[in-house]
Amino acid sequence: MQWQDEIRAAQDRITGQVVKTPVFKSDAFGPTVAFKLEQMQHTGSFKTRGAFNTLIASEVPEAGVVAASGGNHGAAVAFAARQLGHRARIFVPEIAGPAKIELIERTRAELTVVPGEYANALELAEREASESGAMQVHAYDAPLTVAGQGTVMLEWEAQGLDADTVLIAVGGGGLIGGALAWLGGRVKVVAVEPMTSCALHEALAKGAPVDVPVSGVAANALGARRIGRICFALAKGGAVHSVLVSDSAIVEAQQSLWQAHRQLVEPAGATALAALLSGAYTPEDGERVAVLVCGGNIAPEPVFELTRT
Amino acid sequence: MQWQDEIRAAQDRITGQVVKTPVFKSDAFGPTVAFKLEQMQHTGSFKTRGAFNTLIASEVPEAGVVAASGGNHGAAVAFAARQLGHRARIFVPEIAGPAKIELIERTRAELTVVPGEYANALELAEREASESGAMQVHAYDAPLTVAGQGTVMLEWEAQGLDADTVLIAVGGGGLIGGALAWLGGRVKVVAVEPMTSCALHEALAKGAPVDVPVSGVAANALGARRIGRICFALAKGGAVHSVLVSDSAIVEAQQSLWQAHRQLVEPAGATALAALLSGAYTPEDGERVAVLVCGGNIAPEPVFELTRT
Repeated sequence: MQWQDEIRAAQDRITGQVVKTPVFKSDAFGPTVAFKLEQMQHTGSFKTRGAFNTLIASEVPEAGVVAASGGNHGAAVAFAARQLGHRARIFVPEIAGPAKIELIERTRAELTVVPGEYANALELAEREASESGAMQVHAYDAPLTVAGQGTVMLEWEAQGLDADTVLIAVGGGGLIGGALAWLGGRVKVVAVEPMTSCALHEALAKGAPVDVPVSGVAANALGARRIGRICFALAKGGAVHSVLVSDSAIVEAQQSLWQAHRQLVEPAGATALAALLSGAYTPEDGERVAVLVCGGNIAPEPVFELTRT
Repeated sequence: MQWQDEIRAAQDRITGQVVKTPVFKSDAFGPTVAFKLEQMQHTGSFKTRGAFNTLIASEVPEAGVVAASGGNHGAAVAFAARQLGHRARIFVPEIAGPAKIELIERTRAELTVVPGEYANALELAEREASESGAMQVHAYDAPLTVAGQGTVMLEWEAQGLDADTVLIAVGGGGLIGGALAWLGGRVKVVAVEPMTSCALHEALAKGAPVDVPVSGVAANALGARRIGRICFALAKGGAVHSVLVSDSAIVEAQQSLWQAHRQLVEPAGATALAALLSGAYTPEDGERVAVLVCGGNIAPEPVFELTRT
């Protein structure tokens, strides 16, 4: 597969449907760090890119689309389906939490909340797809999804990214897979996972994707039980530098991002920054570092009232 | 005064001390709107620009600096003073609220919380300045403050702003004064004030700055009792289009900005957008509109805990 061509094609498809998310540089965390604020994307995460790319590139059946999701992918598929006029059925695990469930409900998609974790929702979604004839949109392990997420790095480079290293949070591997596919080794990629859900780290250690336990503050976004095959193929053989961060480091990074720049993100959205702030990844002197902020669907959602000031 | 020269000089002084805040375009609110996210500035508002410009351009006495503030200006002066090695004493009214008071406390400035509103804090700050010999940094009605705030528009134009109209929230008039001074009529400026504190609107109606009552959700940021003389001189004679918004329109705009782009801002930060969303300002067909997001110091501040997901 010619990944760069696929990602350019994805970009052509989704332009006008997605937010060109802003970038900026910060000196608030020590040496200058470049950020891209992809949590400002429609539905609050990068997932919207893969969802639009998949739906636009595919012949969507009358029965519509089905997706299993920790929440962000489901919201993105539901949003894209509504914009494009397709029926959508979304399966989320209970751990998606009220904010993400409400986000999906606002798109008026048909929503099923499944006891357990992401893998349980995926099982139900697959059954529904095979019974109804609806098209399944995989959250991370499908070429159109990965190519869609790869547009984040294409867009960032077009916005003038000048980094030696980019830090990216990893769940099932759609986002980092897309980044590796686009960058092709031109920029060092650091894969950041919570210690409490580290499917890529374990796969790299074992030499193949394996099931891992999943828990922790970022589980509803990064809690894939097994890394995607596409991501693993792109990441193995030294193509990524894999690091782990604690849940408390993630929460501290959330707080730092708020205090420094008033960006309120979900734990997954602060996970890449956590590697830098906690020292899980320590750049060389002069190394130009970039951090991708990937999701903002925090729970509980902020409440806006006339009495607040 | 050659305002454009003053603002260019301010830009030279403060570069490296302030955040070059990001810009982006959104289709989430109807026709495309350009935004500048100035709430991402150090201490959460544009006030940092005027504070650095004033402190760097001035001979700061041994006794340091004094500022009266609804909260954002005080935090900015305290931050700039700490960075530049000056003593800072800040006077805020009770309505500043806990988030802004804590923000100032984090800078380790000497802080006095004054019963009443902004004007009461200003009175105490002026007395303190005259007794101690410290330099007073006015929140909005001083040329160096206005020139510092004017760098927002200089920077935005350098970032490629292509707008017919820019909407700006108004309190005492430092920010919009700086914008009018920089733009010199090249772009239409819409001044947006809450109905509950509208010192510019009243001054324009009466033909001179007059005292107005101050209350409402944005009072601790926009609640100046009387518009600054510098701003009024720049704004009179049709140089601005003045509109008012209700407190509930402001709160709805806060919620819209969160739901569309995960930007959590204080009421003042959403006031300019409120004019667009509520219809207080209705652009012509094809009119290219820009909205300045000016502050993010919401109260209560978000809480980050290990149990959040």
